[in-house]
Amino acid sequence: MNRENSPLLTDLYQLTMMQGYHDAGMKDVAVFEFFVRKLRRGRGFLMAAGLEQALQFLEGLQFTPEELVWLSSTGRFDTGFLTQLEELRFTGDVHAMPEGTIFFPDEPILRITAPIAQAQLVETRLINLLHFQTLIASKAARMVLMAPDKLLVDFGLRRAHGAEAGLLAARASYIAGFSGTSTVQAGMRFGIPLFGTMAHSFVQAHEDESRAFEHFAHAQPGNVVLLIDTYDTEAAAHKVVALAPHLQREGIHIRGVRIDSGNLADHAHRVRQILDQGGLTKTTIFASGDLDEHALLEMLAARAPVDGFGIGTRMDTSSDVPYLDCAYKLQEYAGKARRKRSEGKQTWPGRKQVFRSCGADGRIASDVVTVENDTQAGYPLLVQVMRGGRRLVPAPSLEDIRRHAQGELERLPEALRQLREPCDYKVEISAALRELADRVDRNFLS
Amino acid sequence: MNRENSPLLTDLYQLTMMQGYHDAGMKDVAVFEFFVRKLRRGRGFLMAAGLEQALQFLEGLQFTPEELVWLSSTGRFDTGFLTQLEELRFTGDVHAMPEGTIFFPDEPILRITAPIAQAQLVETRLINLLHFQTLIASKAARMVLMAPDKLLVDFGLRRAHGAEAGLLAARASYIAGFSGTSTVQAGMRFGIPLFGTMAHSFVQAHEDESRAFEHFAHAQPGNVVLLIDTYDTEAAAHKVVALAPHLQREGIHIRGVRIDSGNLADHAHRVRQILDQGGLTKTTIFASGDLDEHALLEMLAARAPVDGFGIGTRMDTSSDVPYLDCAYKLQEYAGKARRKRSEGKQTWPGRKQVFRSCGADGRIASDVVTVENDTQAGYPLLVQVMRGGRRLVPAPSLEDIRRHAQGELERLPEALRQLREPCDYKVEISAALRELADRVDRNFLS
Repeated sequence: MNRENSPLLTDLYQLTMMQGYHDAGMKDVAVFEFFVRKLRRGRGFLMAAGLEQALQFLEGLQFTPEELVWLSSTGRFDTGFLTQLEELRFTGDVHAMPEGTIFFPDEPILRITAPIAQAQLVETRLINLLHFQTLIASKAARMVLMAPDKLLVDFGLRRAHGAEAGLLAARASYIAGFSGTSTVQAGMRFGIPLFGTMAHSFVQAHEDESRAFEHFAHAQPGNVVLLIDTYDTEAAAHKVVALAPHLQREGIHIRGVRIDSGNLADHAHRVRQILDQGGLTKTTIFASGDLDEHALLEMLAARAPVDGFGIGTRMDTSSDVPYLDCAYKLQEYAGKARRKRSEGKQTWPGRKQVFRSCGADGRIASDVVTVENDTQAGYPLLVQVMRGGRRLVPAPSLEDIRRHAQGELERLPEALRQLREPCDYKVEISAALRELADRVDRNFLS
Repeated sequence: MNRENSPLLTDLYQLTMMQGYHDAGMKDVAVFEFFVRKLRRGRGFLMAAGLEQALQFLEGLQFTPEELVWLSSTGRFDTGFLTQLEELRFTGDVHAMPEGTIFFPDEPILRITAPIAQAQLVETRLINLLHFQTLIASKAARMVLMAPDKLLVDFGLRRAHGAEAGLLAARASYIAGFSGTSTVQAGMRFGIPLFGTMAHSFVQAHEDESRAFEHFAHAQPGNVVLLIDTYDTEAAAHKVVALAPHLQREGIHIRGVRIDSGNLADHAHRVRQILDQGGLTKTTIFASGDLDEHALLEMLAARAPVDGFGIGTRMDTSSDVPYLDCAYKLQEYAGKARRKRSEGKQTWPGRKQVFRSCGADGRIASDVVTVENDTQAGYPLLVQVMRGGRRLVPAPSLEDIRRHAQGELERLPEALRQLREPCDYKVEISAALRELADRVDRNFLS
């Protein structure tokens, strides 16, 4: 019954407004845009993600007979309106920034152009999909920038906010440059590389820690990564060294060890020494437990000999900034630009485009937000991806999206890479857009 | 393909450990418990939620043929093991605190007793389900305590972390005492009362704000709640007053207005005055926008004449505390108590029960965590809900759970209701449990 693309993944007011548009005979084309209003503490940039799921939602938009019967049973809607819902499909246009694109406040990353009822109905789920993956890709990108040469793996499903959050966090972090995830369904569904080691319970279920390591090595001879902090980390590292020759005779190599508690950098230094003295110079060290970009920075500053990191809760919940101040706003109806003017929440009206200029070093330097058909220096960021409810091009592969994101991160100037106090990026509002806003205000006041 | 109860909603290591147990012939019964390690900043208590979804997951646990084919294609598992997975169902016992129960750190709210492979496989999704709803119910309960006489409505789907988060946040907040949600699918799926008003886009789509109000009133004559902050809040309130007599002649009453921006308390005072002077004394004021329990407290302290609140992002993401420090840990295997001893993450071993005592005023006063068959003063909180994979009693209705939660909140002592510095509640570890922990440590060291 929980259809992930159900049109009932919406707020009640979308349906009551649709009834209102229906009764008032308002069927004209509306233009809505999704954008972020402002960045939160210490964030310098955002990375767009979630478009693919948004397009799948629009392509599949359709009420089931059961949903219509249930809507009717609420007594809130009239029969004429409900009959129209039977036929409702998304027939509009979509312009968007490709997933993986770096963007900034006030820049639309998605524009919907469709009959107002459709554009209104899809608001809630579109925000839900674009907001979350953008949130996570933007967070994950910070870690990728901190530790570009390390293996970064998403471990976050258990404390993600539900199953979909876990799956989409695996996807968004992979786009941003993570190497993979531990979430098995994300492997099956998106083809994301899977990583996994062992848990404390496996060690605890054995009477003897060495015996647990041996059993695990035999069960996963190609992927022997042993968790060594269940009781005493350094003692377990010595057990690993003692076990290694026995396994080696069977052709099994210990690929790595994982440390999940205590001072990870200190343990890593001591464990590296124990492994090296035991001849296991090729056995890697993997760290996990309460990690985020700040913890990565500290560990790398402490020259901790860690080869890879499992990043869970703090990424999958974007724990320091668990939501973005984003919106999906009406910018035009029936050919006329519109503008919301609520205190602190004013929007720029009309259909917009964003042009980006790069410096001589190839790094991104400035953006201009302008009206759709204006041309500015630089290259446009929004492209049309759907016309009349159909995709214009096939969905890019996840690998293609990931490569695009990597290119974007490479073009990010130093000042925007700072973790704590990134500088403000220059987003200019064009003269043409300011003029349109003035015109809308004048019409409104007259 | 995204099955919300798929066994692939798990971490890869659960499957690799299962292969390890399989190879080592380890099939004994394991006991795992789910608990929260400690409370975060300013939180005084937790409210258990998510058990119903956890039990549904266990009841339905089964690999599909497609999932098994895919697992096989990864080359990570041997055929004997995969064949066993075909037959895998959950055949264990479950003990749990009823949803809506108040609980504290170190107190298990769920215990799984099952063959180790099953108990291991379900870890990730059980944590995922129990963690999130407990997080949200605990957050929502704080708002219910702040504003017990107000209408509180969940508005959070759009910025919840995915669809499931939005649906389950609607459920968890309803359990904690919210009046309902704007999420339509939560109404269909859980029978939660739905609330909704109108959005700025509806007003913007009209040339004239009054005309928008009129259209909406005609479309939803039984639920006329008008959003008045699209352009100028007080000016719109005057328009509402001017419109009211016209609607009244058609038998339509304006039930309420909503304010969504600016200083909500100030606007509410001014709007209340305008409405009252216009004779609309029964028209209620509903506020929304960046609200949480602290904002509610401030508005109530400012005696803002607000009758109801729409609470969105900050509740659905539990924005100040977006995750709990929770765990699902092996406490016994093959009849022997076990204990994880990692730094800062030690657990109390064995099967446990929690006894609660109330004071003369009926308020909860102290808890004791002890071993399963010990008896302590007070009443036990964990009850058996599943035996051999089958429920012992039918699922309680959501209304029953909500009533239980209400009773729990009423029994909460004053000191734990404080928003910022609640006192620490006394959770005692019994002598019997301390003795068991010592015995486990001695066995381990010998």
